[in-house]
Amino acid sequence: MARRGVLLVLSSPSGAGKTTLAKRLLAADPSLRVSVSVTTRQPRPGEIDGRDYHFIDASEFERREREGELLEWARVHGNHYATPREPVERALAAGEDMLFDIDWQGARQIREKLGADIASVFILPPTAKALERRLVSRNQDSAEVVARRVAAAATEIAHWSEYDYVIVNSDIEASFASLAAILAAERLKRARQTGLTPFVAGLLADF
Amino acid sequence: MARRGVLLVLSSPSGAGKTTLAKRLLAADPSLRVSVSVTTRQPRPGEIDGRDYHFIDASEFERREREGELLEWARVHGNHYATPREPVERALAAGEDMLFDIDWQGARQIREKLGADIASVFILPPTAKALERRLVSRNQDSAEVVARRVAAAATEIAHWSEYDYVIVNSDIEASFASLAAILAAERLKRARQTGLTPFVAGLLADF
Repeated sequence: MARRGVLLVLSSPSGAGKTTLAKRLLAADPSLRVSVSVTTRQPRPGEIDGRDYHFIDASEFERREREGELLEWARVHGNHYATPREPVERALAAGEDMLFDIDWQGARQIREKLGADIASVFILPPTAKALERRLVSRNQDSAEVVARRVAAAATEIAHWSEYDYVIVNSDIEASFASLAAILAAERLKRARQTGLTPFVAGLLADF
Repeated sequence: MARRGVLLVLSSPSGAGKTTLAKRLLAADPSLRVSVSVTTRQPRPGEIDGRDYHFIDASEFERREREGELLEWARVHGNHYATPREPVERALAAGEDMLFDIDWQGARQIREKLGADIASVFILPPTAKALERRLVSRNQDSAEVVARRVAAAATEIAHWSEYDYVIVNSDIEASFASLAAILAAERLKRARQTGLTPFVAGLLADF
């Protein structure tokens, strides 16, 4: 049955389990795809152009931004990162589902451009303590760096109400099941199942 | 976490597997409730008032309809059947999910009254042949009765596009998994999770 793909957008403060959930979902469902971003930063050792990123220079980035070829973009440590629009449009039209692990600002930009295609999910930590523990234990950063990370988490959380679904990640197994159910349900949305119109016409013609 | 209940509406032509799916979902999830209808018809042997139906007379039915106490109603073989509004409102407010096995006309009436609470699912047969086979084999009715049933099925199918989700029931196990995923996802909708606002406020206050 022909259908339009789901653009599954996943956001959360760092430390709430979003990346773990995204990896599990991608492993469990090989048909799910991720977008390859474009960036103006230099390739790091081992990174392959076209697999990890599309490496482009600043003037090419500006041109693409100006001509509406980027779904969303952000500046991080002086470098630009963006999601190219064309491969996403092509995947959705072909019925391929895509997963976006992205912050609230990127989610907002994508929502403006592809609203009807999106199923957006916000992952919340069960408690502030649980989040802080993960932010602290992750590496040996200074108290100042941890404090900055906690403040960033609070900013991200403040945007929870812009999302279609919310999962409170108290238990990773339950949260994974919830995320998989959301993707399964979104695939069944009538508006996405473009093949239903000819299918039902055929069904009624056979009566 | 406090939340508003899901009103899961299930429609399909008879013979497409809707009742089997509804029974399995109710058995798998004891928290899911069904509405007890009111009817003006006489109780049959073994039927218990308040469990199978609320048996009321025609003037009481008219009064309830006039005063907006009925979510939807239909006339079948000269008798009236309806869903009382108050128990449904009470269940949804208490976070209890309800299953409605109902035709497109009932679904439309409920949608007008409780639109935001509803997740509506239409079950389609995989082929016209599969449906006809089930309509014919079900009992020893005359060709005329079967023809009437097939015509009714075609009318019902014509309303498939009024629903949020569509399941083509080629395989009962897969369809059951799809239905369960829809219910699980609908429970996670941000708009239903009324407890999230105080929860997030507490989370941010603890930072």
